[in-house]
Amino acid sequence: MRVAIIGAGPSGLAQLRAFQSAQQQGCEIPDLVCYEKQSDWGGLWNYSWRTGLDQHGEPVHGSMYRYLWSNGPKEGLEFADYSFEEHFGRPIASYPPREVLWDYIKGRVEQADVRKYIRFNCPVRQVTYNEETCLFSVTAHDHDTDEVTTETFDHVVVASGHFSTPNVPDFDGFQSFNGRILHAHDFRDALEFRGQDVLIIGSSYSAEDIGSQCYKYGARSIVTSYRSGPMGFDWPDNWEEKPLLVKVNGNTAHFADGTARHVDAIILCTGYIHHFPFLDESLRLKTDNRLWPLNIYQGTVWEANPRLFYLGMQDQWYTFNMFDAQAWFVRDVILKRIALPDAQTMVKHSQAWRQRELQIEDERGMIEFQGDYVRSLIEQTDYPSFDIDGVNKTFMAWLEHKNENILTFRDNIYRSLMTGNMATAHHTRWLEAMDDSLEAYLASPIRQSAKQQEKV
Amino acid sequence: MRVAIIGAGPSGLAQLRAFQSAQQQGCEIPDLVCYEKQSDWGGLWNYSWRTGLDQHGEPVHGSMYRYLWSNGPKEGLEFADYSFEEHFGRPIASYPPREVLWDYIKGRVEQADVRKYIRFNCPVRQVTYNEETCLFSVTAHDHDTDEVTTETFDHVVVASGHFSTPNVPDFDGFQSFNGRILHAHDFRDALEFRGQDVLIIGSSYSAEDIGSQCYKYGARSIVTSYRSGPMGFDWPDNWEEKPLLVKVNGNTAHFADGTARHVDAIILCTGYIHHFPFLDESLRLKTDNRLWPLNIYQGTVWEANPRLFYLGMQDQWYTFNMFDAQAWFVRDVILKRIALPDAQTMVKHSQAWRQRELQIEDERGMIEFQGDYVRSLIEQTDYPSFDIDGVNKTFMAWLEHKNENILTFRDNIYRSLMTGNMATAHHTRWLEAMDDSLEAYLASPIRQSAKQQEKV
Repeated sequence: MRVAIIGAGPSGLAQLRAFQSAQQQGCEIPDLVCYEKQSDWGGLWNYSWRTGLDQHGEPVHGSMYRYLWSNGPKEGLEFADYSFEEHFGRPIASYPPREVLWDYIKGRVEQADVRKYIRFNCPVRQVTYNEETCLFSVTAHDHDTDEVTTETFDHVVVASGHFSTPNVPDFDGFQSFNGRILHAHDFRDALEFRGQDVLIIGSSYSAEDIGSQCYKYGARSIVTSYRSGPMGFDWPDNWEEKPLLVKVNGNTAHFADGTARHVDAIILCTGYIHHFPFLDESLRLKTDNRLWPLNIYQGTVWEANPRLFYLGMQDQWYTFNMFDAQAWFVRDVILKRIALPDAQTMVKHSQAWRQRELQIEDERGMIEFQGDYVRSLIEQTDYPSFDIDGVNKTFMAWLEHKNENILTFRDNIYRSLMTGNMATAHHTRWLEAMDDSLEAYLASPIRQSAKQQEKV
Repeated sequence: MRVAIIGAGPSGLAQLRAFQSAQQQGCEIPDLVCYEKQSDWGGLWNYSWRTGLDQHGEPVHGSMYRYLWSNGPKEGLEFADYSFEEHFGRPIASYPPREVLWDYIKGRVEQADVRKYIRFNCPVRQVTYNEETCLFSVTAHDHDTDEVTTETFDHVVVASGHFSTPNVPDFDGFQSFNGRILHAHDFRDALEFRGQDVLIIGSSYSAEDIGSQCYKYGARSIVTSYRSGPMGFDWPDNWEEKPLLVKVNGNTAHFADGTARHVDAIILCTGYIHHFPFLDESLRLKTDNRLWPLNIYQGTVWEANPRLFYLGMQDQWYTFNMFDAQAWFVRDVILKRIALPDAQTMVKHSQAWRQRELQIEDERGMIEFQGDYVRSLIEQTDYPSFDIDGVNKTFMAWLEHKNENILTFRDNIYRSLMTGNMATAHHTRWLEAMDDSLEAYLASPIRQSAKQQEKV
């Protein structure tokens, strides 16, 4: 039996680790081939300076920018089978920068020795299904050899993510705007906007965090423009929220409330689309970004053809450990440890979750909904159980801390639900921590302040 | 008989016009389907503010920037069957801006009424060939309906261009450069670089022209960095040529001659790659950018499967009228007016041209080589003959004018080889012409100066 996994980011790596975990326990596992477009693993967490198209002419996967620190507590995303403390040898703070999280993701899969399954620089071009042979054909372009080849598989797991293909709206006047227009996907270094008047379109995580980055690294002013409603945080003086952009004229932006502002650059924090240019029409998930996409049973099994699976296609409060829960479930379906019900029952099951999703009233409800989903998956496999209610509470505390102060919430710490240990406070407050390297982050407070003295 | 044409830029439109021209003369033509990824025709000449991925998640085709004026005389690219004078009703100047050239391209195909053959917003995903049926399967994603469908064709013409997928090298220190790094493909508005120290990597057309744009629109300084040799033009004081970049450190660029410079932005004018992610391995042209790519007989016929054709895949001195010459030739092969020799003879013929290409010594030789190629195609079809030697001479004069002054060469005018009429001088010198709109360009000198007086 052969299984193709598309993508070696957190989801695809979870799938590899799930199979390796079974193997470790003496189970025979299928042949695994993991196709990865990038030259290294880690998905979005593998930072690249590149934007647009990469060295092989492929759309750049990464939406990651420099100086990004986790915008949620690490205690919400911790692997149940590999704690931060196990990886770093001691407790660390709760909102690590990108490189630290990447290191953590890599630590588990290096230990599991699954890199051998991955074909790097190898974007998938086409996946089709043959009804007669019950096999998938996966066509991929190996850029190391510049050859396009096709192989067949019994199962395909789509783990290519959905925060890589930007949703890029147009606005009146963009065609002749006298400055830079970019999507958050192409945002890289906040220093590019130092001294500039920056307009950000959007009011979700990207808007809030890219705005904070621009503020931290010296933008002259920030305007965030919302469609439905303001974020409502207590912004610094040079940061203003305005209703939706109506048009730009030269370097002047006009808003729905009749006001206007000079802007040097426009950053579209307008979200991402689910985009699978490599999937045959009959296999292609079509959904907006939400907690319960339809047509995937238990959030993973493609109902129209249950030999195909999706990981991580939900809007996310839970992330790494949710991908794990899904990957363990998919593994057990493939290994026939879990039997799938008939098509009708799967659809009915999905509709019931959708009905519940539609009744969610607030963020607390969203968190609990997704917590319940993760719990329901974990109960079906041997993925280590963990305190979902505890994680939910951590997420609620996070929301409170953000509301208290959007620019200092990262200075808070939380207790690990995996080890029971409290995180340690970071040696530098986030607003003053300009160096986001792993080395600077892990430096002891003493060494760090010594360094700072040296500089002074 | 059904023919698929991939792309509705200058090459694809030439193919549509070629068929329509035959039809006009009473010939029965095949069913034509032209797949176009963009929402409008004109290929690179259809300007968009977008960079990276477009509104449908597809790689943006355009490498076009604002304020681009033709960098070669229009007399070198004029259609033999539709002169500039016919389109604009009077002679115009020799280096028109982008919108004027786009208008000209559109004029011919609007007159020919071929828009009906084009499926817009419809990128091709996959082309395969079935040996048994002798048919191509073309799979395309129609973004208007969000459906992926497959149709079969007797012939496929690949006219997707080769100046859309950037060649993006890496340099030491890029990962932590404190400013913007972009490829020429993503360059849009020179005003984004006003007041900045700009580093341009490259020494070909993009480097020379994007540098000139940055100079014209107020960059503080420009450094162009070459691999093989300097461009050697007489640059203004704030523009310097340096050998290859070795590394960047913070905002400091270090060059192979040991010198260093502060830079705010780095523009990679490092060329483009031939990239056909939609073609099966057996159909895929692999070549560098050169005057005589191998494996395509007469520069167009895919020797390994002569039912497949390529247009415009050569490095280009000749452009629009060369695409025409190719399209007319391909049309006549499809209509069986031209019989192809056996495979061995085709290969031999291509090798002979390659041998000649390898002996070219200078730019004059390149121009004459490509002129001979265009002539050899035109002699085989009913495409209107024109004075190739005359066009060659125009190209040589252009090179001389560039060498005289790289910042004023666009103020020169040339005689049309199609109408015999001299171009008229433009009302404003290029360095002072800041408005690149069609309206400003076609405004009479009197109206224009009146406008300028109004402003004063």
